[in-house]
Amino acid sequence: MADPEAVGRAFLDYFYGLFSTNRAGLASLYQESSLLTFEGNKFQGQQAIIQKLTTMPFSNVAVQRDTVDIQPSISGGILIFVTGKLMPEGENMPLKFSQTFHLMPTPNNSFVVTNDMFRLNYG
Amino acid sequence: MADPEAVGRAFLDYFYGLFSTNRAGLASLYQESSLLTFEGNKFQGQQAIIQKLTTMPFSNVAVQRDTVDIQPSISGGILIFVTGKLMPEGENMPLKFSQTFHLMPTPNNSFVVTNDMFRLNYG
Repeated sequence: MADPEAVGRAFLDYFYGLFSTNRAGLASLYQESSLLTFEGNKFQGQQAIIQKLTTMPFSNVAVQRDTVDIQPSISGGILIFVTGKLMPEGENMPLKFSQTFHLMPTPNNSFVVTNDMFRLNYG
Repeated sequence: MADPEAVGRAFLDYFYGLFSTNRAGLASLYQESSLLTFEGNKFQGQQAIIQKLTTMPFSNVAVQRDTVDIQPSISGGILIFVTGKLMPEGENMPLKFSQTFHLMPTPNNSFVVTNDMFRLNYG
């Protein structure tokens, strides 16, 4: 049984590493049933989600995690709740954000993002 | 099959209604396996969670929801992600917060909170 805290933190390292510099590389984390709600806009499935993530109005972005909360969910799932700041390259003002992920284990001992919800927290 | 969006919004009306004025009344929403992470502190089970919720440093509090995102989760679950503001009675400065809930259906057509994660978003 994987330790949710360790899995969750390893996932975040991997996710935000790719999010920062190579968002197309996030494709393998999503499946056809995966859901993304990004600033209230809904996307379903790997293709639609990656299309959204790769057409955001910035390329490289630094991600600072201020708080990370992780809980085990049902059926081996893991719930992750992050608050932090995005700093797009060339911008001076960090953008505060909150993000929730729900991960589910796959048969080959990996995890897939079943749910992803992202919000910028305006001041 | 319940509509996740409708169930989620009805849940939030009920939850924040009680949260505002009668947090002890939230007990029936939690079970022994329910998890609350509140500002990084972890609580499990109805009793521990209600103990935490009823000993917060304010009694009546207004809750403003700024954004609400709802997604269906596995096995009939519902994931809810809220950002908003708390205004404790007698305070002038609203406190920004983010909160994630995972609800699961019960055999009697109701829902229980399996996961609850709450964070204040400091400026």
